[in-house]
Amino acid sequence: MQLSGIVTLLTDFGTRDAWAGIMKGVLAGIAPDVRTIDLTHEIPPQSVRTGALALLSAVSYFPQGTIHVAVVDPGVGSERHALLVVTESAYLIGPDNGLLAPAAEKLGIRQIRRLDRPRYFLHPVSATFHGRDVFAPVAAHLANGEPVEALGSAAEEMKPLELPRALVTTDAIYGEVVGIDRFGNLVTNVPAVELGRADSRDIAVVVAPQHSGSAEPAAPVRIALVDAYAAVEVGQALAIVGSADLLEVSIRDGDAAAGLGATLGDSVTVLLRR
Amino acid sequence: MQLSGIVTLLTDFGTRDAWAGIMKGVLAGIAPDVRTIDLTHEIPPQSVRTGALALLSAVSYFPQGTIHVAVVDPGVGSERHALLVVTESAYLIGPDNGLLAPAAEKLGIRQIRRLDRPRYFLHPVSATFHGRDVFAPVAAHLANGEPVEALGSAAEEMKPLELPRALVTTDAIYGEVVGIDRFGNLVTNVPAVELGRADSRDIAVVVAPQHSGSAEPAAPVRIALVDAYAAVEVGQALAIVGSADLLEVSIRDGDAAAGLGATLGDSVTVLLRR
Amino acid sequence: MQLSGIVTLLTDFGTRDAWAGIMKGVLAGIAPDVRTIDLTHEIPPQSVRTGALALLSAVSYFPQGTIHVAVVDPGVGSERHALLVVTESAYLIGPDNGLLAPAAEKLGIRQIRRLDRPRYFLHPVSATFHGRDVFAPVAAHLANGEPVEALGSAAEEMKPLELPRALVTTDAIYGEVVGIDRFGNLVTNVPAVELGRADSRDIAVVVAPQHSGSAEPAAPVRIALVDAYAAVEVGQALAIVGSADLLEVSIRDGDAAAGLGATLGDSVTVLLRR
Repeated sequence: MQLSGIVTLLTDFGTRDAWAGIMKGVLAGIAPDVRTIDLTHEIPPQSVRTGALALLSAVSYFPQGTIHVAVVDPGVGSERHALLVVTESAYLIGPDNGLLAPAAEKLGIRQIRRLDRPRYFLHPVSATFHGRDVFAPVAAHLANGEPVEALGSAAEEMKPLELPRALVTTDAIYGEVVGIDRFGNLVTNVPAVELGRADSRDIAVVVAPQHSGSAEPAAPVRIALVDAYAAVEVGQALAIVGSADLLEVSIRDGDAAAGLGATLGDSVTVLLRR
Repeated sequence: MQLSGIVTLLTDFGTRDAWAGIMKGVLAGIAPDVRTIDLTHEIPPQSVRTGALALLSAVSYFPQGTIHVAVVDPGVGSERHALLVVTESAYLIGPDNGLLAPAAEKLGIRQIRRLDRPRYFLHPVSATFHGRDVFAPVAAHLANGEPVEALGSAAEEMKPLELPRALVTTDAIYGEVVGIDRFGNLVTNVPAVELGRADSRDIAVVVAPQHSGSAEPAAPVRIALVDAYAAVEVGQALAIVGSADLLEVSIRDGDAAAGLGATLGDSVTVLLRR
Repeated sequence: MQLSGIVTLLTDFGTRDAWAGIMKGVLAGIAPDVRTIDLTHEIPPQSVRTGALALLSAVSYFPQGTIHVAVVDPGVGSERHALLVVTESAYLIGPDNGLLAPAAEKLGIRQIRRLDRPRYFLHPVSATFHGRDVFAPVAAHLANGEPVEALGSAAEEMKPLELPRALVTTDAIYGEVVGIDRFGNLVTNVPAVELGRADSRDIAVVVAPQHSGSAEPAAPVRIALVDAYAAVEVGQALAIVGSADLLEVSIRDGDAAAGLGATLGDSVTVLLRR
């Protein structure tokens, strides 16, 4: 697979410190012509699941041969492995903790390598910052054309990501809120493909917030599935297929998380009249 | 107009999710040599006015032939138009909701195009993410040299931005706080040019906070116009012409919004002794 | 020293406004081929010390001949000088307020120049935004190959950064918390090199939080020095040499600042049994 010359970065390092910039310095030192693109550095600290979903949402939109470096790494300094995963259309580099798994499966895994060749690392390798000392330099050597076989020994498998899956029955899909974005939109684990052929007039989405602080649970809210925010009035709730091909629940020009009192893990049920 | 090879991005997407990175992936896939520069992705969600002012503050500082992509788009998925505005020195791409208007007027409008040619979009076009599916790919095709005539049909006009204007009289300028930056500086809608020839010793700036929560309105504060923060003592308020050529009110080494209890929309009056 | 073609940016401008983007526009207008890399724009407003430490942490990881532009500048518009510092491996550009000093000393100072040649500035030079009007254009001219002698007149010295130093005795090192990162890790001013030859089993780290709000001081906490987070159980405190070669105190998979009730300036004592 020909390289695109692009390396993306996804971490939980935040942007208050210079860590992401340091990784780019290491990359530029080894591979001066590489271009780096930030996916995000605002993954909640050590949230492998959030990082894996963000990486999954992004990889399809980059040119063939892009190298994606992802570092959300609670096990740094322990015996967890570091991986290079070669897929049908991209290279994925990061810790073996499930972070790379959904993106790798989506793109199609060709081979898995363990990053066990210290000659490609920055020395001394710190106990806390493998983004700088392991992942960035290996990505840079790969970008320079180093064969994947040289970068690490072959591995049979990688750790999967533990994620709740929506339960699909004839009449309903039982899912939950798995993400809340900056606008307060609720991202669910209900795949658009499961809504597939049903007419949207025959679908109702029920969000059941658990209101942990209040005495009684809130009444569930029934919401219509629409094709565009503008299909409802300002301030009204709606369900829509979001940009990650998952069902999302929103309030037009508003904040659904606040407006519905919903939070991560809340039940989202899709009622189907097939 | 020759292209600079630069595409800037301004959105309200935040940096927690990978959305801005995904737009760069789409750009790089279509136009591999283009360079992207972030203006900001931290426009308050759906605040077209804040986005328009930020874009206005930036466009003059980029090389001739830069493509500016701006996406603050409450109407995404509705019938609002998408625009390419060709100005004297730059190309502006974004929704037709006033976001591009102040920058376009400042740079001088040559022609307006409606982005109505789906062959330049990414398919399927989602209902929620035209930054990825419409604006980024059109910008990339433009960066590749596609003629503007091909990218969309000619339009006569674009929607203006609704902004309060300062009222200028012989003795005074009646303005208001239209922005508060990260340092707590109050940005007003009083253009520096209106202060023009007056000697700064003959100018007093009066900020009248409305203290919505308190029983009595706060006394207005009279503030001197100065040329540098260092003209007053640490902790003192001052008025100064800010980097957007608008009057700003600050506290030296402090936070004027907090210190004066001022907020967006508060009255700022400039008293002139001409 | 040959130029790397890279300019890094470190500021306290935040990313809500377009200021960092504007600096890149100015750079690209003068030096089209330069690549800019953000170190961070999230230095706390006007915290010269935090900025100096962040710059120090980063400069070693960039290619020889990189230009680092740092702007944390409470004295903007006053008579403070603007500097270009030529070191053994990099160029540093910023205000003369201590911000550049630790990085300059680490890299080895060759010469210091005062940026006193307005022909390299953007005009009119604003009172508030020298990042755009002075530092970015000078960096761009330097990147274009303008000799350092042309950019400013020679200066003998620069202002040092005022930083607390750890006190090292035979039995103990008396330091303090000088930084807290996004994960709640406590960065101390105890250099790894001072721990040097001692066996880690003979070292205990004592953090003494001052709990300003409570009636009695918290009991100091004794913490073991380890080589990897995984050496302790989840939720346990540990001391470790961090990525800036300084002693850090962490809680495995947790937030040490919150868990220990520690804050900036709290005492950190390292007990050595040599």
